[in-house]
Amino acid sequence: MERKIILPESEIPRNWYNILSDLPSPLDPVLHPATGKPISPKDLGAIFPEPLIEQEMAADRWIKIPDEILEKYCLWRPTPLRRAISLEKILDTPARIYYKDESVSPPGSHKPNTAIPQAYYNKVSGTKKICTETGAGQWGSALAFACSLYGLECEVFMVRVSYDQKPYRRIMMETWGATCIPSPSNKTETGKTILAESPDSPGSLGIAISEAIEAAVTQEGTKYALGSVLNHVLLHQTIIGLEAKKQMELIGEFPDVVIGCAGGGSNFGGLALPYVEEKINGKNISIIAVEPASCPTITRGAYAYDFGDTAKKTPLLPMHTLGHSFIPAPLHAGGLRYHGMAPIISKLVVEGLIEAKSVNQLDTFAAGIRWARSEGYIPAPETNHAIAAVIEEAKLAREEGKEKVILFTWSGHGLLDMAAYQAYLAGQLTNYTLPDDDIKAAIEALSDLPKPGGKS
Amino acid sequence: MERKIILPESEIPRNWYNILSDLPSPLDPVLHPATGKPISPKDLGAIFPEPLIEQEMAADRWIKIPDEILEKYCLWRPTPLRRAISLEKILDTPARIYYKDESVSPPGSHKPNTAIPQAYYNKVSGTKKICTETGAGQWGSALAFACSLYGLECEVFMVRVSYDQKPYRRIMMETWGATCIPSPSNKTETGKTILAESPDSPGSLGIAISEAIEAAVTQEGTKYALGSVLNHVLLHQTIIGLEAKKQMELIGEFPDVVIGCAGGGSNFGGLALPYVEEKINGKNISIIAVEPASCPTITRGAYAYDFGDTAKKTPLLPMHTLGHSFIPAPLHAGGLRYHGMAPIISKLVVEGLIEAKSVNQLDTFAAGIRWARSEGYIPAPETNHAIAAVIEEAKLAREEGKEKVILFTWSGHGLLDMAAYQAYLAGQLTNYTLPDDDIKAAIEALSDLPKPGGKS
Repeated sequence: MERKIILPESEIPRNWYNILSDLPSPLDPVLHPATGKPISPKDLGAIFPEPLIEQEMAADRWIKIPDEILEKYCLWRPTPLRRAISLEKILDTPARIYYKDESVSPPGSHKPNTAIPQAYYNKVSGTKKICTETGAGQWGSALAFACSLYGLECEVFMVRVSYDQKPYRRIMMETWGATCIPSPSNKTETGKTILAESPDSPGSLGIAISEAIEAAVTQEGTKYALGSVLNHVLLHQTIIGLEAKKQMELIGEFPDVVIGCAGGGSNFGGLALPYVEEKINGKNISIIAVEPASCPTITRGAYAYDFGDTAKKTPLLPMHTLGHSFIPAPLHAGGLRYHGMAPIISKLVVEGLIEAKSVNQLDTFAAGIRWARSEGYIPAPETNHAIAAVIEEAKLAREEGKEKVILFTWSGHGLLDMAAYQAYLAGQLTNYTLPDDDIKAAIEALSDLPKPGGKS
Repeated sequence: MERKIILPESEIPRNWYNILSDLPSPLDPVLHPATGKPISPKDLGAIFPEPLIEQEMAADRWIKIPDEILEKYCLWRPTPLRRAISLEKILDTPARIYYKDESVSPPGSHKPNTAIPQAYYNKVSGTKKICTETGAGQWGSALAFACSLYGLECEVFMVRVSYDQKPYRRIMMETWGATCIPSPSNKTETGKTILAESPDSPGSLGIAISEAIEAAVTQEGTKYALGSVLNHVLLHQTIIGLEAKKQMELIGEFPDVVIGCAGGGSNFGGLALPYVEEKINGKNISIIAVEPASCPTITRGAYAYDFGDTAKKTPLLPMHTLGHSFIPAPLHAGGLRYHGMAPIISKLVVEGLIEAKSVNQLDTFAAGIRWARSEGYIPAPETNHAIAAVIEEAKLAREEGKEKVILFTWSGHGLLDMAAYQAYLAGQLTNYTLPDDDIKAAIEALSDLPKPGGKS
């Protein structure tokens, strides 16, 4: 019984899967923040290169992956599919637990799956520099890595409190040659305005997005990049699920349950979308997005048009949201602290093809420790959300006496998040459940905005 | 052209290679620190379990790896053999550069290759707890990981300055359930004596070794474990080279040059020893150990009997040494700051089967940055020493127009060593060459000790 199912490089998928071609009904259009009218490719041209805008709106089911991208992917891809035999034994479950290990990339997470193509398409479109924002630094480090491989400059606006408290991912970015700027900064008008009012502002992802977009549109040869939420990001991430399907086929397995943690939805979508296609075609699969109880975007938010940032500078997206002014409670899974959700994932929830559940912070760390002491690897705090849900499913399988096959994304390792484990082991973390009234108020604040359509 | 050569789990080597059976002349015996007489297995029984003592002195060429160890090895082994295609291109070299990636283990280095068998043999021998020391934390975290898999308690004495300044590896150990104690501590008589004299002592590896040994012999059911230098440690590490040979055979390659960084000699020996056997049997290979210019144990030290620790508590080992009182200059490759060298490696240098060279700190970080920006992965500072030597060999191949095949151990990743990269990028690091007089004095201090024999 092998612990690792390896796909040779020659078997790496040659196309990404575009689920836009298979949705039961089309996505509601993205709207211009000023006019409220559907946004045009031209509008997006100020911040994204043309090939990525085309992918954002593509109709083809399969999008070819250029050889120049495949070559870089093969620095770490195909990633191993692993079986969690030791955890199965400890849980005494008849379930078979498989995980797609996306931690083996140089920055240690799934993020380079889209950072590499975004850097590549910018490079071939003549971009010299890419600006982006980052919270805890997963996305910023992935883009820094990708830009170093294609010889592009990279400027990362990092939320100041993370910049100060979590220096390791910042140094990773600098090791790959990127410039990392604490946000709010004096580099942009947005940053200057905020600093004039609050010189000690700890920053926020919303502010950092606004700064990165402003930096992109005001510097020559410069574009912007986003690490989650958008259609082209999820498209690139489907390499996860496409590889996993081949690997599962190699051992004659098909999942009953597919699980991933969901912040903006990109690692979850990456594994899930190729299985959503199977579900549309009649296969019986549970596909479950797992989110923090303290940031319950899908499970308790509204399906509405909303802005992607606090400053209302981004287009309006049709998505599950807790409101663009939502500020999540302190939570040690930085990648899951986003008020919105990828429109594709949101639509699939509305269509009943994807379920969602939320888990408490303490349960996620308990699950992560259990994992580390059986399977060895220390998971990222985000990944612990998926693991907590997997353990619940495996226990259920034991109670039901069912030989269930569970598959999930192990989205990243936790080697740069040890401070969160220290806080947990020292008993300093708590659970936090958002009060109903807070959610009600945040959603009511969206009532003046347009409404997306519902289930097809 | 594939970047990764993968060996299936079914092909994992079933035996370790014991070079003691093939040495041109036997190792000089290890001597008792009190009597100066060859040490007996019984003497070692106070700190090591019997199966490890047997391995330390074994005569068989092949030592069977128990299934219970293979099962744990397969959490991450066989490790990938990778080809550094991007670096080759940037260097414009006809050399083909392969590296055995030992960073893919849960703690991120080669250390678990011996931590797993050491924990296993202790477990089956009835040990309840293992004590050890650690500097920067590579070895301590590997043993903590291994003990968590076998349900053993683990107590790690960590040099206080590292405990305070490098909390991440300490938290890793705690995540795996180990107890980590800053050394010097009040847990041992050695520690108490030192603290009484210097309450602010930053500690040293020598002190931590003494504390760990004392803790092992004074607690019931407790043994001691060492992460490098000894014969059984190098034996376990030969899994690296045995796998690499199979992988090189798969693609029809044989190395002209084999390279590894050397601190105590275990990752270097792990790759090199199976190739030393080939060299003994007539193959033409350069086998090169790379050490820091600031801690030039092989290149400038004496081949002499010396203690393994500052407090002269360990047996006398026949090895290359800078003297047990040697205190290396500040150096950001913690794993290479040891005054001695594995007796096996030392003997092979004396026999002319292994060469050694030293590299400067600034060159190693420049090499590491070059690697990260081409091959993607950020190497450990120790690994950067090997990479610096590899780049020199590749340049030489270009000058000579030779299609040389270079193979080296990528001993660990640098994700927990980002502070060292920050210091380098900020221009705060320097080179340091040890003055001749310092070396002379340190070696003269050994003149009262017995002398080992020379070349056979």
